[in-house]
Amino acid sequence: MTTAHHAPGEARPGGRTARTREAVVAAVLEELGESGFGGLTMEKVAQRAGIHLATVYRRWRCVEGLICELLTELSADVPLPDSGSLAGDLRALARAIAAFYGEARVRSLIEAVVSAAGRDPQVAAELRSFFDERLALAGRMVQRAVGRGELPPDTDPVQVLSALGAPFYYRILITRRPVDRDLADSAATAVLAAAHAGAYTRKADGPSPGG
Amino acid sequence: MTTAHHAPGEARPGGRTARTREAVVAAVLEELGESGFGGLTMEKVAQRAGIHLATVYRRWRCVEGLICELLTELSADVPLPDSGSLAGDLRALARAIAAFYGEARVRSLIEAVVSAAGRDPQVAAELRSFFDERLALAGRMVQRAVGRGELPPDTDPVQVLSALGAPFYYRILITRRPVDRDLADSAATAVLAAAHAGAYTRKADGPSPGG
Repeated sequence: MTTAHHAPGEARPGGRTARTREAVVAAVLEELGESGFGGLTMEKVAQRAGIHLATVYRRWRCVEGLICELLTELSADVPLPDSGSLAGDLRALARAIAAFYGEARVRSLIEAVVSAAGRDPQVAAELRSFFDERLALAGRMVQRAVGRGELPPDTDPVQVLSALGAPFYYRILITRRPVDRDLADSAATAVLAAAHAGAYTRKADGPSPGG
Repeated sequence: MTTAHHAPGEARPGGRTARTREAVVAAVLEELGESGFGGLTMEKVAQRAGIHLATVYRRWRCVEGLICELLTELSADVPLPDSGSLAGDLRALARAIAAFYGEARVRSLIEAVVSAAGRDPQVAAELRSFFDERLALAGRMVQRAVGRGELPPDTDPVQVLSALGAPFYYRILITRRPVDRDLADSAATAVLAAAHAGAYTRKADGPSPGG
């Protein structure tokens, strides 16, 4: 299941830009499989993808930029459910996130990017924009729930989805224990109850704090 | 406000072990103030504290071990409230956490440790034990709430407190935006509603998943 999504102004799928991206993502995956994160370099990726090194640097800037691109690609396979109820949507998405980070390979990617973001503002910006995009897409399930009258009208989708994701990153980065379906179901139950209780409504005095 | 706490087998406050620890924590703080995290070394800390380098290595193992010790020291100043209601306790603790991580210095400490934990299993173990200890202490407010009949009897304190903390680490490590009082109040409201809804009850088939 793929949810295709393209930022405004981005080349259409099938164009030259898309083919470059595809080749680079494939090369990053292969390089990671062969040499791991420690062995990943811009040079090796450019060579394997058959793309000019200057192009790779211009578009992805650093190794972690490549990892963010790969995360974007992989996360496009996390389905954004539309089950007809917020409870069903939250549970399905939480389980999909649990399955996503249940893979050691994906878990180590997010660890690497978070670790790098602490040292490099450009990586931090990449990481933030990866999450901003995902949160905006997933937020539609909250907008639908508001439309159905399931939630207060001033509910902020970004806050709801951030709250759904937060326990996974806490488990991965802080307590460093396995991500499982129990965590997913607990997160979904918690966010549903909290959203009903108005924990994620926008403050009257400003825009969304962005998770 | 200090909540003194000592692991079983640890020397009593005032003993030689405690004085060593005190000198090392003070030296780490001073070194960080002078040269930042990048300039912190075991040697400089040992010299400034007037402690044998071998002792510092044996007890703290690496620079991040020192940082965890400092975090333990600093977090002992985060009060664990006992207001008489779970709502009051959660809100007070969330605001105290927000104030704690509202300081750029403390925020950069946790970033450094999380970043290092991704590369070094020993640091990961230090980080986990820091949180395990904090969660166990803070869990008492949940036990009191269960005792007052405010929550289901099988509510797991570790899950409740992990859920209270998760949004802060998501904000610090993932979206990398400021931690503020709005986040604290949202987290407290969310966790209270979720706990009432039974999102944090123990599964019948096993022990607590540890946050």
